Amino acid sequence: MNEKLDEKRLVTKTIYEGKIIRVKEDLVELPNGKETTREVVQHPGAVGMLAVQDGQIFLVRQYRYALQQETLEIPAGKIDRGEDPEICAIRELREEIGYTGKMKYMGTFHTSPGFADEIIHLYQADELQWSPLSSDEDEFLGVIKVPLAEAVDMVMNNELKDAKTVLAILWANRLFAIPAGAEYLEK
Amino acid sequence: MNEKLDEKRLVTKTIYEGKIIRVKEDLVELPNGKETTREVVQHPGAVGMLAVQDGQIFLVRQYRYALQQETLEIPAGKIDRGEDPEICAIRELREEIGYTGKMKYMGTFHTSPGFADEIIHLYQADELQWSPLSSDEDEFLGVIKVPLAEAVDMVMNNELKDAKTVLAILWANRLFAIPAGAEYLEK
Repeated sequence: MNEKLDEKRLVTKTIYEGKIIRVKEDLVELPNGKETTREVVQHPGAVGMLAVQDGQIFLVRQYRYALQQETLEIPAGKIDRGEDPEICAIRELREEIGYTGKMKYMGTFHTSPGFADEIIHLYQADELQWSPLSSDEDEFLGVIKVPLAEAVDMVMNNELKDAKTVLAILWANRLFAIPAGAEYLEK
Repeated sequence: MNEKLDEKRLVTKTIYEGKIIRVKEDLVELPNGKETTREVVQHPGAVGMLAVQDGQIFLVRQYRYALQQETLEIPAGKIDRGEDPEICAIRELREEIGYTGKMKYMGTFHTSPGFADEIIHLYQADELQWSPLSSDEDEFLGVIKVPLAEAVDMVMNNELKDAKTVLAILWANRLFAIPAGAEYLEK
């Protein structure tokens, strides 16, 4: 691919500076020389942890205001300014489920490349030890444990809808090579 | 879980109305009665298609302005107002890779539940037939084909970073039960 796909920033305008996000509206030059605007949400980045204990994984139930509903997700959290992602992962795991653990890096992902710069670093956490840390003041959570094989079923039935959670569970499924259930093979 | 996790909207304020996103800053009441603000990005929703032909999948190279880099992703696109997601999937597939196909619904996912309401409907597209449709005016794409097994390797090596793309490939891997490579089983 030697086609030039880049878009050149001509003007940048900050629309909003929130506690978590910054919103920009930029004027850009397209590869064909024409101009358009691009809307960008800037986010500090996040971590997500697939915490495994005795073949079970931890899921966190919480109310997601943006979705106006409760979700079940792997423990996760925003990176503080200048914080190392792995340190953040250990801190957030203690805050959300009360355990510290050994972090194994899984990968880094873009959640919404069409309009946001958010990246999420995913870890597998094991060798868990109880070590709670009081959590964010405005966060209210419920914690459950689910066998990994059951979590995979919940993914394939689309009961779990959070992208990072589904990605982490399918990743672990691939790593540990859980046999596919017969119901998924018919087609 | 009978703990009450809901957050009640007290005041809603629209900060920005863009071409694609709307940004809101709401004052909410937390489960403990305290108040805080929530930043919300509203998005029209999207579709993503894992298009399969002779054991190969299609990936699209494009410049993502929000990330300031080129990415490799499955074909995808925003839902037009009032558009049925499956109709959108067929349209976007024709626009992005030039093929129409039979859509098999995979599931619906939340990309960034912490700050955005974006949902993405994923489909597996097969029985592909050449039927190009001219694409969005400000979209510049390159299309490649990769064997599914190789795409799974690209996922596990974190060469592919787009969450919906990784999710769709791992989902297909689970469905088709591709054996895990030995390198993923050592641990």
